Amino acid sequence: MTEVKVGIIMGSQSDWPTMKEAADILDELGVAWEARIVSAHRTPDRLWAYGRDAVGRGLQVIIAGAGGAAHLPGMMASKTRLPVIGVPVQTKALSGVDSLYSIVQMPRGYPVATMAIGAAGAANAGLMAAGILSLQDSGLAARLDDWRAALSASIPEEPRND
Amino acid sequence: MTEVKVGIIMGSQSDWPTMKEAADILDELGVAWEARIVSAHRTPDRLWAYGRDAVGRGLQVIIAGAGGAAHLPGMMASKTRLPVIGVPVQTKALSGVDSLYSIVQMPRGYPVATMAIGAAGAANAGLMAAGILSLQDSGLAARLDDWRAALSASIPEEPRND
Amino acid sequence: MTEVKVGIIMGSQSDWPTMKEAADILDELGVAWEARIVSAHRTPDRLWAYGRDAVGRGLQVIIAGAGGAAHLPGMMASKTRLPVIGVPVQTKALSGVDSLYSIVQMPRGYPVATMAIGAAGAANAGLMAAGILSLQDSGLAARLDDWRAALSASIPEEPRND
Amino acid sequence: MTEVKVGIIMGSQSDWPTMKEAADILDELGVAWEARIVSAHRTPDRLWAYGRDAVGRGLQVIIAGAGGAAHLPGMMASKTRLPVIGVPVQTKALSGVDSLYSIVQMPRGYPVATMAIGAAGAANAGLMAAGILSLQDSGLAARLDDWRAALSASIPEEPRND
Amino acid sequence: MTEVKVGIIMGSQSDWPTMKEAADILDELGVAWEARIVSAHRTPDRLWAYGRDAVGRGLQVIIAGAGGAAHLPGMMASKTRLPVIGVPVQTKALSGVDSLYSIVQMPRGYPVATMAIGAAGAANAGLMAAGILSLQDSGLAARLDDWRAALSASIPEEPRND
Amino acid sequence: MTEVKVGIIMGSQSDWPTMKEAADILDELGVAWEARIVSAHRTPDRLWAYGRDAVGRGLQVIIAGAGGAAHLPGMMASKTRLPVIGVPVQTKALSGVDSLYSIVQMPRGYPVATMAIGAAGAANAGLMAAGILSLQDSGLAARLDDWRAALSASIPEEPRND
Amino acid sequence: MTEVKVGIIMGSQSDWPTMKEAADILDELGVAWEARIVSAHRTPDRLWAYGRDAVGRGLQVIIAGAGGAAHLPGMMASKTRLPVIGVPVQTKALSGVDSLYSIVQMPRGYPVATMAIGAAGAANAGLMAAGILSLQDSGLAARLDDWRAALSASIPEEPRND
Amino acid sequence: MTEVKVGIIMGSQSDWPTMKEAADILDELGVAWEARIVSAHRTPDRLWAYGRDAVGRGLQVIIAGAGGAAHLPGMMASKTRLPVIGVPVQTKALSGVDSLYSIVQMPRGYPVATMAIGAAGAANAGLMAAGILSLQDSGLAARLDDWRAALSASIPEEPRND
Repeated sequence: MTEVKVGIIMGSQSDWPTMKEAADILDELGVAWEARIVSAHRTPDRLWAYGRDAVGRGLQVIIAGAGGAAHLPGMMASKTRLPVIGVPVQTKALSGVDSLYSIVQMPRGYPVATMAIGAAGAANAGLMAAGILSLQDSGLAARLDDWRAALSASIPEEPRND
Repeated sequence: MTEVKVGIIMGSQSDWPTMKEAADILDELGVAWEARIVSAHRTPDRLWAYGRDAVGRGLQVIIAGAGGAAHLPGMMASKTRLPVIGVPVQTKALSGVDSLYSIVQMPRGYPVATMAIGAAGAANAGLMAAGILSLQDSGLAARLDDWRAALSASIPEEPRND
Repeated sequence: MTEVKVGIIMGSQSDWPTMKEAADILDELGVAWEARIVSAHRTPDRLWAYGRDAVGRGLQVIIAGAGGAAHLPGMMASKTRLPVIGVPVQTKALSGVDSLYSIVQMPRGYPVATMAIGAAGAANAGLMAAGILSLQDSGLAARLDDWRAALSASIPEEPRND
Repeated sequence: MTEVKVGIIMGSQSDWPTMKEAADILDELGVAWEARIVSAHRTPDRLWAYGRDAVGRGLQVIIAGAGGAAHLPGMMASKTRLPVIGVPVQTKALSGVDSLYSIVQMPRGYPVATMAIGAAGAANAGLMAAGILSLQDSGLAARLDDWRAALSASIPEEPRND
Repeated sequence: MTEVKVGIIMGSQSDWPTMKEAADILDELGVAWEARIVSAHRTPDRLWAYGRDAVGRGLQVIIAGAGGAAHLPGMMASKTRLPVIGVPVQTKALSGVDSLYSIVQMPRGYPVATMAIGAAGAANAGLMAAGILSLQDSGLAARLDDWRAALSASIPEEPRND
Repeated sequence: MTEVKVGIIMGSQSDWPTMKEAADILDELGVAWEARIVSAHRTPDRLWAYGRDAVGRGLQVIIAGAGGAAHLPGMMASKTRLPVIGVPVQTKALSGVDSLYSIVQMPRGYPVATMAIGAAGAANAGLMAAGILSLQDSGLAARLDDWRAALSASIPEEPRND
Repeated sequence: MTEVKVGIIMGSQSDWPTMKEAADILDELGVAWEARIVSAHRTPDRLWAYGRDAVGRGLQVIIAGAGGAAHLPGMMASKTRLPVIGVPVQTKALSGVDSLYSIVQMPRGYPVATMAIGAAGAANAGLMAAGILSLQDSGLAARLDDWRAALSASIPEEPRND
Repeated sequence: MTEVKVGIIMGSQSDWPTMKEAADILDELGVAWEARIVSAHRTPDRLWAYGRDAVGRGLQVIIAGAGGAAHLPGMMASKTRLPVIGVPVQTKALSGVDSLYSIVQMPRGYPVATMAIGAAGAANAGLMAAGILSLQDSGLAARLDDWRAALSASIPEEPRND
């Protein structure tokens, strides 16, 4: 059985369409993941427990997505030494600038590896997780190299008129 | 002995020059307060304990100041039903817009009563706390009315050329 | 007959779909409210009268929503010592950043407890009002605790693929 | 005795160094003015009275400067049909963007003629007032034309190396 | 025959749906207007001629709307001493913040009376023009007072549930 | 005698410390330039004449710097088909974002080649002018290649601790 | 056979609907162009080769469009002395402000001639390229003058009510 | 001899005072690093070579700092599968918002783990690198745990009046 290496957590069900992009990338690369709703504000004890147990459970990277006053990634970074990757989810009024500032502007001591706002950022969170895990997994490194090469190869020389 | 009604918490020693404005207002109005450094990221367990014990200790209002990815006010709002007043501390790169968005853009369920960025906001946090406590303390209500009347009366009719 | 404790005021009929979120929360928590259109610019005398009479009528908290150059919450804070909670209504061109700045950046002396932009902010205004009133109403405090516990309990462990 | 045509009002003594630029321009152009501190929040009744009496006192234009949640210009526009010119005073944290949005984003019905942030805006408020008064005062129109011609003539052809 | 007092100019046909709000207000108030497309960049000579002839043709106020790098209002203010009212038209990418900054941030010497972004700003430009003209037209002043009183009277006490 | 190929124009003497960076680069590259103060608002006729005569006088590129509601580059682009390079000068309140938006957001038909805010942008305006002129001047092209190579070669491998 | 003078490059197929505006303008003006997808991140070696060979292939101007962290225009400016014109493509979350800042804020040494965000900017890139090429092609200069004159002539005097 | 695991690269000597914070953290944690000036624009071939050789040289993490149109982190992410951590350096006009957007808004395929603007972000880049390396180095994991515990333990209970 494959051990789960990456935990994908998010503040709310409404973040899943965005965060699923991370899961899909990890599937493509053959990295086992789990997804959990862990709301910093609504389920703080769940956040505490998840952070406290992450190392012991064998998790290696945590991807955390949230929108607005997006406290989940930063609070998780406070609770575990594992690398935390933050995904700012796009919001209605402020388009995710609020999410971005809340995630990226962490104080000294508690880094969050912040990605772009929205779906591209979530996909990149999966790739960043894979890049980190590749440091100890040469098979994954090769698959990541292939994924990147395929992406490059997919670009046509000239634009199409659709 | 006067019972402490207002807890002033802040993420770091460097926030105190700002947050002391709240304490000074409370002193002027005769409201007992305590000040604590409670960092959401550096001392999350202290945050947890403070929020858990706040009602039981007789606190009635919590004033929380923080800068950057300012998670303290929102996380405290998650841990206690007491009114939490948030003060966005001014920051170097983003002037406190990061603090403001991280504090004010809370999701449904966990309000933070957000004040203006910086020292004026901290002073107003003290006044908001006093306004809340005045609802059950007619003496304080009278002192607050006097404070407001004195502020109004202090405004000269015409500007001075200094 | 239940005495009205919370006045919900707004600058225009078009703010009601947003501000109704506050009313709905107060209904859920059994707090009596009234709703009034009080435009700072179109009906300044109504604003004056509402602020002047608020304490005498037994109101305890005022929730004020407005958009654009949103002067209603701040002007109300000038006219009464009661806690004023401000809700920045989302706007067409500036998405409510104009509303937010006009409400939150109050000068020393006149705090407005500012919530998030839009509907989540309005709902949170209702919760903040309930939190303030809970300080003198243990029944309401219990209902608020229950509401918060139910919200926490409603969060599933894992996201659904819809 | 010259009748005062322009009222210069401001929220606070600290706005005077900015607003004095308007007064200086009006002096240069021979337009009589008065300056008053009229705080929307600290002296709302003064604002009310000033607005109510403005037409009767023979004022023709009101210049209003304020910073932060700058409600003075908009509230004055609500209280009088006289043209109100607004000057956003520069602020510490948000550089006057808060002042600008609070002044310019007025709802339908109550225009404020908004100038640039800071001292240039205040000087231009004086010029705008003079331009308005020139419509009924050919002598002032001539002086304004001269002032503008002198400004144009003062521009050297080539930049100096200082 | 009624003499045209207000010139409504705009950079492009696409600005007319916005600027027509100004014309409609002037119609309601019985003020004669003309509308012209005067593009600062595409028809600079037309701008020059319009500004040069404005006083001589009996115009008293110019309302200028433009979007993006909105140079029309400011260039018109350079060419005539008549009061120029600027309307920032909403834009696709930057929502009119570009228009607003290009119009309001005029240098010392050349004020533009800037209104809110979009249709409300255009309507207010009409009202500001009427307010200026009312200084010399007591009939118009009375109609403007009535218009304002009718707007105030139209506000219901309580919001409707639609 | 060397024919002047590049006209450096600016709205005000205060822009010269910034714009001199462009002149210095052109000196380094042996490109003859002239510098003129041409204010869009204060000397519109000078702007008109400069634009009208530019081609006939043999100018090939115009570099235009301005701050705030920076209309000079765009208005010059309206008056001549020569390439116009715009430099947003840094401003006090808005740091040059106002200048940038006023210069870059030009409508279809009238491009301004916009550079970075401030001194780096002015230097780059000189380089862009040189790049354009290099298309017809192989000696200049070689000097520009050398300048670029020297800049690259000046970068040490490792940072110094000063 | 017409030699290609202008290379239009873009980061992705999705940029083509925007960048095609540049191609259309060049077609109208009779300037030969080529279009290539050259992704700074996905095909960096293609970028390298394109920049290295551009002069040798006879290209004279490069138009580069990209969105988000838009590195293509700046990297191309690093690889060739040819004038590079940058087009910030509008983005979902940040509306192209991210693209604009990534393109325009280039450091000293490597200018990118930045256009407006989106389709108008792309069209203007075509016009800027034509303006540059006109310096050595009097036929093109005449066609560009005609294009500009036709644009001016197309503007009606008065707006239509549609 | 200790093998270098972390490459700290930056666009310019002027970034070193910021980026040295990352080096200092790595020193505290006993992680070997190297620092190189690798300018995306001035030394693109150095960037190419650094990225191409990074894996082969045994580097495991790359920390890249840059300001303005900050292309270095994203271009490095294009050239290597190693995790790239980006540090937005504070800038003069735009305070580092330009750096932040240029670094964080990467397209799908090429993640950059973005940190806060300025020195705190650089220190956190060091900690993030250590967190990643800790996954395969239990000694380092223990030192990182100790570092974090010491930081937490250093926070006093109450603020000092200095």
